[in-house]
Amino acid sequence: MAKFMDVHRDMQGITKEQLAAAHRADQAIEREEGVRFERAWADPKAGVVYCLSEAPSADAVKRIHERAGHPPTEVHPVTMEVS
Amino acid sequence: MAKFMDVHRDMQGITKEQLAAAHRADQAIEREEGVRFERAWADPKAGVVYCLSEAPSADAVKRIHERAGHPPTEVHPVTMEVS
Repeated sequence: MAKFMDVHRDMQGITKEQLAAAHRADQAIEREEGVRFERAWADPKAGVVYCLSEAPSADAVKRIHERAGHPPTEVHPVTMEVS
Repeated sequence: MAKFMDVHRDMQGITKEQLAAAHRADQAIEREEGVRFERAWADPKAGVVYCLSEAPSADAVKRIHERAGHPPTEVHPVTMEVS
């Protein structure tokens, strides 16, 4: 499994409830593509949402987000991580 | 304390060692601005690095990254998070 960071733009004014609902919609179907959405963060002022996931491919991440109604602007395989 | 996601672009070809060294350089001085860098992820092919932090302000995050030698392209206050 690889890790991905995907980015949604044009999300100005997104509320905590909308972010939570979008995340739940992804998680409800993520297993169908072998994806696991881990965390998501939003900057409602700039309209940017970042989602961190584990998935078999960037396309799998994209398909789940599309089917849940919020196609991502970019999906990046993040092949390195430090903490 | 607020959370921030900052983004570095033009990092094509960054290695795991360079990412770890950059993260250590940030962490070595982060306390001077009250910042705590939590995790960082890199897509070396697209040249993008994402850093998640807790900090008193976006400027504090920016100053630490600048002093450590890698100014960020963007710093976003991520006022909402779901998992």
